[in-house]
Amino acid sequence: MSRIEDRLASLGITLPQPASPVANYVPFRRIGNLLVISGQICLGPDGVLNARHKGKLGGTVSAENGAEAARFCGLNILAQIKAALGSLDKVASVVRLGGFIAATPDFTALAGVMNGASDLMVEVFGEAGKHARSTIGVPVLPLDCAVEVEAMIEIAP
Amino acid sequence: MSRIEDRLASLGITLPQPASPVANYVPFRRIGNLLVISGQICLGPDGVLNARHKGKLGGTVSAENGAEAARFCGLNILAQIKAALGSLDKVASVVRLGGFIAATPDFTALAGVMNGASDLMVEVFGEAGKHARSTIGVPVLPLDCAVEVEAMIEIAP
Amino acid sequence: MSRIEDRLASLGITLPQPASPVANYVPFRRIGNLLVISGQICLGPDGVLNARHKGKLGGTVSAENGAEAARFCGLNILAQIKAALGSLDKVASVVRLGGFIAATPDFTALAGVMNGASDLMVEVFGEAGKHARSTIGVPVLPLDCAVEVEAMIEIAP
Repeated sequence: MSRIEDRLASLGITLPQPASPVANYVPFRRIGNLLVISGQICLGPDGVLNARHKGKLGGTVSAENGAEAARFCGLNILAQIKAALGSLDKVASVVRLGGFIAATPDFTALAGVMNGASDLMVEVFGEAGKHARSTIGVPVLPLDCAVEVEAMIEIAP
Repeated sequence: MSRIEDRLASLGITLPQPASPVANYVPFRRIGNLLVISGQICLGPDGVLNARHKGKLGGTVSAENGAEAARFCGLNILAQIKAALGSLDKVASVVRLGGFIAATPDFTALAGVMNGASDLMVEVFGEAGKHARSTIGVPVLPLDCAVEVEAMIEIAP
Repeated sequence: MSRIEDRLASLGITLPQPASPVANYVPFRRIGNLLVISGQICLGPDGVLNARHKGKLGGTVSAENGAEAARFCGLNILAQIKAALGSLDKVASVVRLGGFIAATPDFTALAGVMNGASDLMVEVFGEAGKHARSTIGVPVLPLDCAVEVEAMIEIAP
């Protein structure tokens, strides 16, 4: 068992199946030691978009459910990394997360929602999981999902 | 004639003039073998923003016209790549597209709109054109255009 | 005194303290010669979000105050670069700025607002400060700030 997957097991985390793109693109591309992961929406570990992760923060989606949605995006990113590299042990660092939060214009507590994804990376990778990050509100996301997160990963030599 | 421009010709595609930035920046920057292209708005091949590509998806812009707008963004990206590298044959891969779709909060069919840009890359570059991608709705874009697309390109050695 | 800090002094610019992330992430990550800076919000040189930089363009924030907010984001980026590299002289080029402007759906003059950040980079770094750029409107940003800017920087060898 790999070092990181051992940690996943001890955290009680099971990786979802990597989601297939919903359109004409691929879930990741590698350039040198940089792995670029497509925006992952908040499909659950069962591959289904749960009703509580559909809609907008400040609307029908609570801050707590929004943070869970962001964590699900993070799990989908982990699944894509494993599909790309074969093992999560190949992650040298999480370089950047970009967080897109579907929100009404008056919902300003975006950082706490995005922490659902950020906290996961630090739980799983420790110091190497600490990343640069940009978080923004958006009016709408594909499939009316509440959160989408993209990532840039440094691949170990 | 170059290999890729030969394909463009067979597809009946004429590249537009690369658009000048509308403000104090440059259309692309290179770092190592990575070419970063500024967000390209949906100006037509004649350099003009057509009325049907102005406004929002879910508002006055139809899904079909939105996809055409995304394709125009893609054509402008191709024009910038050629301006940057001299030839489209220097493209090793399209690493990432970032798609920004001006949309009302209830327009969730964003992926299909963005396919206008993604499909173009695959038509032109084949497997090398398959890219990582993030697509988000936004409330408004510069000049009230309907779509803006940015790109990261891997340059061949 | 360093070359670039000498220029800052001649421009009358004092760098702010680098802002601490408001959540579980880090302000920058380096991969090879690429420095990725987290989205910086428009906190003033005193570390405080001024009331005139809170809210939305097209709402309570004027275009002039929006451009000042973008400049403040740029100053915070400079502070993070110095924290990351020790000296601004280590900047080979500003590769990309990503500008997020909190705006009402009818505010289309986004480019002029973002120029507040872009102009600063060119004032400080000259030709090396000219960057690729994407600018988008967003419905809301963390802490209700008016502007957030992220950056990619090329590090000199």
